[in-house]
Amino acid sequence: MPDFLKLVSPENAHIQYLPLVKPIERIERISVFEANGRVSAENILSEVALPNFRKSTVDGYAVRAKDVAGASASLPAYLHCVGEIHMGEEATLQLNTEECVIIHTGGMLPDSADAVVMVEYSAKMADEIVELQRSVAVGENVIQVGEDIHAGEVILPANKRIKSVDMGALLAMGVTEIDVFEKPQVAILTSGDEVMPPETKTLQPGQVRNINSIMMARVVEEFGCEAKLYPILPDNDEIFEENVKEAIENFDIVVISAGSSASDKDMTARVINRLGEPGVVLHGLNIRPGKPTIFAMVDGKPVLGLPGNPVSAWVIHQVMVVPILERLCGQENFHFWGRMLALLEINIPSISGRQDWVPAKLILQEDGSYLARPIFGKSNLIFTLSRADGLICVSATATGLAAGEKVEVYLIR
Amino acid sequence: MPDFLKLVSPENAHIQYLPLVKPIERIERISVFEANGRVSAENILSEVALPNFRKSTVDGYAVRAKDVAGASASLPAYLHCVGEIHMGEEATLQLNTEECVIIHTGGMLPDSADAVVMVEYSAKMADEIVELQRSVAVGENVIQVGEDIHAGEVILPANKRIKSVDMGALLAMGVTEIDVFEKPQVAILTSGDEVMPPETKTLQPGQVRNINSIMMARVVEEFGCEAKLYPILPDNDEIFEENVKEAIENFDIVVISAGSSASDKDMTARVINRLGEPGVVLHGLNIRPGKPTIFAMVDGKPVLGLPGNPVSAWVIHQVMVVPILERLCGQENFHFWGRMLALLEINIPSISGRQDWVPAKLILQEDGSYLARPIFGKSNLIFTLSRADGLICVSATATGLAAGEKVEVYLIR
Repeated sequence: MPDFLKLVSPENAHIQYLPLVKPIERIERISVFEANGRVSAENILSEVALPNFRKSTVDGYAVRAKDVAGASASLPAYLHCVGEIHMGEEATLQLNTEECVIIHTGGMLPDSADAVVMVEYSAKMADEIVELQRSVAVGENVIQVGEDIHAGEVILPANKRIKSVDMGALLAMGVTEIDVFEKPQVAILTSGDEVMPPETKTLQPGQVRNINSIMMARVVEEFGCEAKLYPILPDNDEIFEENVKEAIENFDIVVISAGSSASDKDMTARVINRLGEPGVVLHGLNIRPGKPTIFAMVDGKPVLGLPGNPVSAWVIHQVMVVPILERLCGQENFHFWGRMLALLEINIPSISGRQDWVPAKLILQEDGSYLARPIFGKSNLIFTLSRADGLICVSATATGLAAGEKVEVYLIR
Repeated sequence: MPDFLKLVSPENAHIQYLPLVKPIERIERISVFEANGRVSAENILSEVALPNFRKSTVDGYAVRAKDVAGASASLPAYLHCVGEIHMGEEATLQLNTEECVIIHTGGMLPDSADAVVMVEYSAKMADEIVELQRSVAVGENVIQVGEDIHAGEVILPANKRIKSVDMGALLAMGVTEIDVFEKPQVAILTSGDEVMPPETKTLQPGQVRNINSIMMARVVEEFGCEAKLYPILPDNDEIFEENVKEAIENFDIVVISAGSSASDKDMTARVINRLGEPGVVLHGLNIRPGKPTIFAMVDGKPVLGLPGNPVSAWVIHQVMVVPILERLCGQENFHFWGRMLALLEINIPSISGRQDWVPAKLILQEDGSYLARPIFGKSNLIFTLSRADGLICVSATATGLAAGEKVEVYLIR
């Protein structure tokens, strides 16, 4: 059987294994001012209608529509202006026949007015007489009470990632506190005798610096979780097991970036399977880079084994770990991974049956469109990503992409 | 002359007015661990080559290629295995004729080896004899010294927004400190007698809560700046002028979200022009929502006047303020605004000659593609954005978009 048939596609991995991940149940009440990036744990309903008064959408004159019926530039209506509605004040005055009142955008309509004539179609005459050169329908240029939101309507649904516009929606209604899910606690482990702390000044031959933990931690934080970095673990079954066990007990999810030696890879799966049921449920994704990915569940908690290569680890973090974190956070919908359309500059070869991710640089063309220039690199080291603007995904059904094709470049985030 | 001909298009506004904005010159040295989202102020060059040793890309046996020349499954080569290269250790042993050594991915090649045979094409025999069933070319499955990065090569260029992968690139080289531009200081002002603090429990008729300042502040922080919110200012020329003057003196950029009354709009431009040269250079963008946008330069500092309507303010913040902030931050390239491709569900009418931004919800279809459902709303209140996943941009050259068209939805960020 060819290798790729034994592997699970990322899409199937999502369908099969994401439902195993349960959202955390811990909830906390926080200020809406601090809620950016958090996930709502309650439906917030509006207690009142918004706007709670009839409001002008333009600058002009509040009128009774029948008083300007048939008015035009050649045959204007002449109304008596009885004053001005000041912003932020209740409009208490009443309009009698053939009267109007100055109103500003957002101003409150008097009870007896039913429409607004834009200031552009008016001229001031002597003795508080205003010339109005347009007729208006009843309700024209007016927002009715409750047109934005009715009393009892959902302002913000539960299980939504809160963005600045959601904060705006809540605060517009005077909602200043909200129940959100607590931030999931993520343990990040790295192992490998060759792996040194990133602050190591000089490497001995054979050594590499640990950058995966730091990159993972930043992504974890960007997706609303808290990251705890474990010290680098040696290639030693017992020490490794002790630490993974401790991490599973104390955290909501454990992400392991193993050293890249064969013994490490075996060690991760072996140790996870010793720690609880069901253990490893996925070992090998049909993706490049990132094939030796491990997904396991131990005592109801997800445990991920990521490849040691930084580019592989980063890709798997985006493709597999982010959706898992989002589920854990209580989010109902996945985050949309932003893309840019671009024309592919050169061919990308690819093996049919495997999903390939290729870093690419976006180059602005004179006509405003973008060219995607793939960055190939045997070594797969982090510089290919650092120099890229995004990644092109070659689907498993394709045998490469041809120069000149329109491709979607998934932006590095 | 039609109204839209007097207005400047967003594209032309970028070309004409962005160059007036000068990057801040203040630089600080920070830890790379804290550098996410900051902008580099120096070119970081590699002091050493990476990798600094020849490295295997696979698990297998390090060999001298000539010892396995012509080897195949039917005619394997038999080599004497003289040991194992341990991860993180210098490979000091030497291979003699017809010898090989066990090596792991990322392991260091001994001087006398020049290629690696994958473990998949090997079998262990008795007496440390290994059967190798593949020939390899010199250099096969090996990363050469400096193949990732040469000594003296740029690891990270100046004027780049640092992401997690860039932190990874720096830390991989042992670079733990970097010069970055200081965070620009952004003053956010709001005026309007009708505008109340968001924590106001009950609104009087005619009043609205201030949500623009909070939303702006979050966006400003997401793009690497520091926001200071001024208290809400009344519709009073003198108080307004005093505060804008103070803000220009003490901040790098001033963003004003004016109340929505006509007098406020005039007030913003009038006051800015009193404060310094050249004053208002742009008043009116050919965009909906967001037409009454003001861009000014006072004493070399940008001053923005945003519409009071929250959706208009948010759109202008994304289209105009974000590129200005990025220039101010020292960034050389603009941020890519991530998008999703989708099929438009219903027609979007639009006036030719004006750029229209329409909020839309993305709906996943059974085939994995997305449908974009426009959210129309007369009131243009914040709920249209809060319920949307992104915005569709109808270009000034189009007279609307037709149902079934493929559109790019700019994701709400």
